[in-house]
Amino acid sequence: MDNFTFYAPTYFAFGKETENEAGKYVKRFGGSRVLIHYGGGSVIRSGLLDRVKRSLEAEQLAYVELGGVKPNPRSGLVYKGIDLCRKENIDFILAVGGGSAIDSAKAIAAGALYSGDFWDYYEGKAVEEALAIGTIITISAAGSEGSADSVVTKEEGMFKRATTGEALRPKFTIMNPSLTQTLPAYQTACGITDIIAHLYERYLTNTKEVEVTDRMIEALMLTMIHEGPKVMEDPDNYEARANIMWAGMMAHNNSCGVGRTQDWTSHDIEHELSALYDCAHGAGLAVVMPAVFSYNMKHNVMRFAQAAVRVWGCQMDFEQPEKTALAGIEALRQFLISIGMPKNFHELGAKKEDIEKLAHTACYGDVNTGTLGGFVTLNQKDVENIYRLMV
Amino acid sequence: MDNFTFYAPTYFAFGKETENEAGKYVKRFGGSRVLIHYGGGSVIRSGLLDRVKRSLEAEQLAYVELGGVKPNPRSGLVYKGIDLCRKENIDFILAVGGGSAIDSAKAIAAGALYSGDFWDYYEGKAVEEALAIGTIITISAAGSEGSADSVVTKEEGMFKRATTGEALRPKFTIMNPSLTQTLPAYQTACGITDIIAHLYERYLTNTKEVEVTDRMIEALMLTMIHEGPKVMEDPDNYEARANIMWAGMMAHNNSCGVGRTQDWTSHDIEHELSALYDCAHGAGLAVVMPAVFSYNMKHNVMRFAQAAVRVWGCQMDFEQPEKTALAGIEALRQFLISIGMPKNFHELGAKKEDIEKLAHTACYGDVNTGTLGGFVTLNQKDVENIYRLMV
Repeated sequence: MDNFTFYAPTYFAFGKETENEAGKYVKRFGGSRVLIHYGGGSVIRSGLLDRVKRSLEAEQLAYVELGGVKPNPRSGLVYKGIDLCRKENIDFILAVGGGSAIDSAKAIAAGALYSGDFWDYYEGKAVEEALAIGTIITISAAGSEGSADSVVTKEEGMFKRATTGEALRPKFTIMNPSLTQTLPAYQTACGITDIIAHLYERYLTNTKEVEVTDRMIEALMLTMIHEGPKVMEDPDNYEARANIMWAGMMAHNNSCGVGRTQDWTSHDIEHELSALYDCAHGAGLAVVMPAVFSYNMKHNVMRFAQAAVRVWGCQMDFEQPEKTALAGIEALRQFLISIGMPKNFHELGAKKEDIEKLAHTACYGDVNTGTLGGFVTLNQKDVENIYRLMV
Repeated sequence: MDNFTFYAPTYFAFGKETENEAGKYVKRFGGSRVLIHYGGGSVIRSGLLDRVKRSLEAEQLAYVELGGVKPNPRSGLVYKGIDLCRKENIDFILAVGGGSAIDSAKAIAAGALYSGDFWDYYEGKAVEEALAIGTIITISAAGSEGSADSVVTKEEGMFKRATTGEALRPKFTIMNPSLTQTLPAYQTACGITDIIAHLYERYLTNTKEVEVTDRMIEALMLTMIHEGPKVMEDPDNYEARANIMWAGMMAHNNSCGVGRTQDWTSHDIEHELSALYDCAHGAGLAVVMPAVFSYNMKHNVMRFAQAAVRVWGCQMDFEQPEKTALAGIEALRQFLISIGMPKNFHELGAKKEDIEKLAHTACYGDVNTGTLGGFVTLNQKDVENIYRLMV
């Protein structure tokens, strides 16, 4: 196990009606002038935004609003948020929504205290400080509610890039599984896929003898396989929603990823798809993962066989372990199809003729250096081959 | 899943030589005048205490020492520590050792800021504030390094009681698996047993549909079964020590125990044994757990069958699930014997003739109210029956 540090000081309030305590938590964590940051429609329609406002008012907290966050959140709104924070002397950002609202809030929180362009943080500059952030999540997916990470797309060039920094961890996160019951089935499935991807990206390690984190990752994958189909069948299944919500946070707060190399190839390759076609991140991952895993399988057949046996319930083929490894990848593919995810470029709305461009941007776009991957180092040719497996 | 809150803001520094950063972390978390609190022999002999002092000196931090913590830490030393903190204006307590040193440090930390008797906190008074605490652990066992809990024995009456409070969570914990390599085999095995007990106490729930925490608990149990025998065979196996150390913390920081009722029967019944005979807590648990589980099994056969199949690799008997449930308990018993733990009263040094007294103290001693148990409610007669199963 590699040396590591782990620090996850987010306060989680989990369960029914917890959103009504938003004001109490903003106050506890030092906020007085709040920016409520959200997407749009459903947060307003469901009455959630009103409940949150009433909760802030009950604590005599001043607030302004900035809605309009889009999936794959954009730099344009981040600049607008930064200006607003400065103009209104905001000291606390409350994100209400999914990973996009949270990641956009994190970018604003860091940018508001920085004299330069916030995009510097997404090109490698370390985030040293940020305004305090709280979140109320409405979808189980990104895990951003318990993580130090943020992903934003720069409109100029459509670069989708990530940053990380301890200052970006939310002070508190409110998790009411009921709030996810009104999600369209497709979005629920995208969230399930994203969580599974966060687990695979940590599972695909080159570090040896990391049984504890292997087992924890497998536990969370098994949870997703067990609970995912339940919510697809019955969107009102609170218990299944609750299990998925806690699993989604645990999958990405990194307690199961410490002390081991991680991969993030599927995310890097997917980001080009959602940046170019504006598809849902989870849907992109559903198409990308089986392709990446099939391509990389030979690098460590036993690791894929382990997932196949322990997670997907495959029988171990002791004479030909690669058959078991492949069976596990196929089981993942079939699972994703069963919950309604796309299986190829066509279903995703991606185009074969863009492959060279996609692979080039993934490897050389922006600050990239020609290769990607923490499990297997891939060059542009490899990435092109992987995209071709998705056609 | 029940509503819950979860907050675990401890900073973990994990890996080789991390103890040399103790001073840096004390400073980062606001300490200036430090009480170093520890047991005795090995911490001094191994040179660990000297390295810690040098690390504090490198940061110009003043310190005083209080050694002499015994296993099953006593109230007498706590009072001494409280006096010392007041006299020396201590603002940070650094515990170096196992659960006993940490739990004693937590009692001192709370008592130093309280005008009454610190024991009030162990009789039900809520802990509201405490001096800041940091820990350097030398055994994987108690999980106190990442928890809000403390267990102390009051010498007058030999009551062993627990308290919990968010102020008791360590600000930082240094985890260097190498530091556990010099432990006697018996202590290593006691630690493994304690970790397994923390997992079972959370597993035995009456809350339905808590797949995510079930799976996480099972993952950590599987880790202990996989890695435990490795360190028993080769005490210098760093990787196995590392896996056990992270599992031990995760087993007790409560991320796998949220939103569900828990049990703690085995702990309550064991505490009377270690209070009366001063046996090692882990050794007591090894004798107690199989007895408690056999006694309580009929309350929920399927829960024990689930553990048997998923954790212990037993075949499910679909016609007679109780056979599977029993096989799982027997597998646990054999595992504990295989790592050198005692299996009955005699091997533990406990006496049959004390059973009535033990059961009476467990049920009525101090502030107890006549029954115990979060899974099955047990009265004094039940507890006597359980002790008899251990003879």
